[in-house]
Amino acid sequence: MTPITLDFSNMVMEHLGVRGVDSERLGGDLADRFRVAHESVEAIRRSGEMGFFELPYDSDALAQAQELADQIEGRFENLVIIGMGGSALGARTLRDALLGSLWNERSNEERAGRPRMYILDNVDPGAVLDVVEYLDLRRTLFNVVSKSGSTAETMALYLVLEGLLIEELGKENVGEHFVFTTDPENGALRSIAEAEGINSLPIPGNVGGRFSVLSPVGLFPAALAGVDAAALLGGAARADEYCRTPVLGENAAGLMATLLHVAHSELGASIHVLMPYSERLRSFSFWFQQLWAESLGKAHDRSGNVVHTGPTPLPAVGVTDQHAQVQLFMEGPLDKVVIFVALTGTQRDMKIGGHRASVPSVAYLGDHTLGQLMDAERRATAEALRRNGRANMTFEIEYLDASTLGELFMLMSVATIYAGALYDVNPLDQQGVEMGKQLTYGLMGREGYDPPERSDPDVRWRLERG
Amino acid sequence: MTPITLDFSNMVMEHLGVRGVDSERLGGDLADRFRVAHESVEAIRRSGEMGFFELPYDSDALAQAQELADQIEGRFENLVIIGMGGSALGARTLRDALLGSLWNERSNEERAGRPRMYILDNVDPGAVLDVVEYLDLRRTLFNVVSKSGSTAETMALYLVLEGLLIEELGKENVGEHFVFTTDPENGALRSIAEAEGINSLPIPGNVGGRFSVLSPVGLFPAALAGVDAAALLGGAARADEYCRTPVLGENAAGLMATLLHVAHSELGASIHVLMPYSERLRSFSFWFQQLWAESLGKAHDRSGNVVHTGPTPLPAVGVTDQHAQVQLFMEGPLDKVVIFVALTGTQRDMKIGGHRASVPSVAYLGDHTLGQLMDAERRATAEALRRNGRANMTFEIEYLDASTLGELFMLMSVATIYAGALYDVNPLDQQGVEMGKQLTYGLMGREGYDPPERSDPDVRWRLERG
Repeated sequence: MTPITLDFSNMVMEHLGVRGVDSERLGGDLADRFRVAHESVEAIRRSGEMGFFELPYDSDALAQAQELADQIEGRFENLVIIGMGGSALGARTLRDALLGSLWNERSNEERAGRPRMYILDNVDPGAVLDVVEYLDLRRTLFNVVSKSGSTAETMALYLVLEGLLIEELGKENVGEHFVFTTDPENGALRSIAEAEGINSLPIPGNVGGRFSVLSPVGLFPAALAGVDAAALLGGAARADEYCRTPVLGENAAGLMATLLHVAHSELGASIHVLMPYSERLRSFSFWFQQLWAESLGKAHDRSGNVVHTGPTPLPAVGVTDQHAQVQLFMEGPLDKVVIFVALTGTQRDMKIGGHRASVPSVAYLGDHTLGQLMDAERRATAEALRRNGRANMTFEIEYLDASTLGELFMLMSVATIYAGALYDVNPLDQQGVEMGKQLTYGLMGREGYDPPERSDPDVRWRLERG
Repeated sequence: MTPITLDFSNMVMEHLGVRGVDSERLGGDLADRFRVAHESVEAIRRSGEMGFFELPYDSDALAQAQELADQIEGRFENLVIIGMGGSALGARTLRDALLGSLWNERSNEERAGRPRMYILDNVDPGAVLDVVEYLDLRRTLFNVVSKSGSTAETMALYLVLEGLLIEELGKENVGEHFVFTTDPENGALRSIAEAEGINSLPIPGNVGGRFSVLSPVGLFPAALAGVDAAALLGGAARADEYCRTPVLGENAAGLMATLLHVAHSELGASIHVLMPYSERLRSFSFWFQQLWAESLGKAHDRSGNVVHTGPTPLPAVGVTDQHAQVQLFMEGPLDKVVIFVALTGTQRDMKIGGHRASVPSVAYLGDHTLGQLMDAERRATAEALRRNGRANMTFEIEYLDASTLGELFMLMSVATIYAGALYDVNPLDQQGVEMGKQLTYGLMGREGYDPPERSDPDVRWRLERG
């Protein structure tokens, strides 16, 4: 098993010129800075505040998720995951990366009896109706995922669907259509599960939503869909191991965090583009976006000073975005770093075919495969960015499976924690969304919350009609 | 029919404080600046360089697309669109916005005999195999979309699929499985269509890919899927009409362009977030992303000066991204404007249900609908952003259908052209992607192109293994 590696040549001055990092610093002040960050992270790790570091080794959680999946297997045609943010993005990534884009369209036989997997992570009634009117609810299992057990949107969706199931199946038959994944002790979901004997799985108290994919939040849907959940954790453990050294040059997560932080803080690259050259990793970019944005976008530093800091993660996918975003990356402001992900091993491939060799503008394609074209375009894009002075780096993965996906999840989670230390912010909280929640409670008439006062002035600025 | 309107209160000083635009300027220098931009756009419009202005009125194109769709109707179960960037994003938006997320999973009967619609906009062999191995090719129509008729990825996919069809059906039966949408006169696809009698539709010579959704590029898939293509153009014509006034306060596209440009150039808001509160408009954000990024991200201004300018468009969707990106929007750098899209009319809705009224943390949800929760969250998010000094504006649409989607397409296309004038760049070219193409040709051994020389120095900077 070749571990994930990183080529960051196009981040250093020798390749990038003045927009690059002086490579000497990687053995100098940046190595020192990382060593300090590493130390503070190790201290927090020892304190037990960051439970996700333990997830790759949590064989109890794995066994529990696998056992429940085994017990349920074959009883449902559809799995609907109800959750917001980190409670949904991990499962979506697992589905898209490991089961492929058309999983839900395949027949029961083609899925080997494994359920289709839908994600409800929006309260848009149109979107919910699209799913609910289509699915046979009697053959559907709902996995309600909320750490707190009281997330407004998750609970609203839960109530809607429970109501529908009660109508359709009668109150006494509804419980077995639910699995709750929630805090082991607290919250409404936990109380309901215990009072009514509903199947449930624990999210450790010290694991936040966006760091939870390797907990039962991701393990249960993975196991139910037939994904090798143990391999997922095995890959994560591998990444944890090789991302634990304090030596910058040997630490993939440390290099990622350090190079992106220095590109942002010293070279003005505040936008961090994650651009896998792999259609199946498209959703992974969105999982990373939430992780990076919510962990690092902060009003205060760890001493309480107002800083309003944080890079903006921007998802992209190769080659598709060469026809959408790359024009801006090439010619626009020098405010971006592009992080490529390349699959470098032998993949399933398709021959392009030389039967149109007489057409001049396409003849050159004929002797090649789609994989070769994809690879050539990735290398050409990285090189063109470099020639335009645009920083970029490339993670290289041999192939995509449960093990390497687990490795990617862990590598990027650890990088986020190191980045938190380098940006000097708390990567575990999300104070910024509180005000919106309070205002929503007010508008929804929740007891103890006032509706927001009308904004002052009362006048609205609106388009006029001529 | 209520036209789309715009509330930009949270862009002006009276609501936003020092981070806002002085509202007096909307009747002063900004109105004047827009009038100049408007004039230059009108001049180009008259010159005939920007063909997309004529698309809403092109009844010939509509008739041709509709006729071909009618002629083909019922013969295929699947429509696969092969195209890159603007050749794919418009069709995906049409599908997701008007047919819903589970269209492809519905039975032939539920689709009233209309085809499933797949988009191949990547050369990833794994993604292509996912689709090709699953679909019955004998029941599949391929719509190959390329303005130039020589886009490398599009042509590679075309050759792959043509090869498979020849194997499966024999050479003589393959032609009827294709419709080419391409330049009316030039390019390989046009030549092949004429030589072999393959059905084809024209993209007017003066319409670029990212402005082509209202041409046969979008009209044909729409018509084939049973979408009211005439209504799409009708809505676009409506937007064209009300976005043509030189009076800033009355011009929705003008206000959007002017406010975003001033927020960027004077207030540092270089990231423009499009955040519809509608799951069905998720793909619309990606259509807009390409339009805004590729049209405005430029190395040179119109006088040829090096400027490296352009805002970075960032797609988001409400309420989902409240649990992913909004933390960063609220607390991070003051470098963003959020553009909300709200559906304000009566939509299909779902009652949340009060059967858990005894659970304190969810009792408040019971008397409401999902739509009400969605709406409360949108308003709460806009207000919380405002209180944090974060600029935002809201487009209000009564409901989503072919007509209002056409209106949105046109409004944002016109706004892009105005923004081009305000940013002083050419919104119609994309020089920045040329180098990547040349390097790809070199790597693929195309005649007349050299492979890129090895970068200098030859040394690569890579992760070391400890």
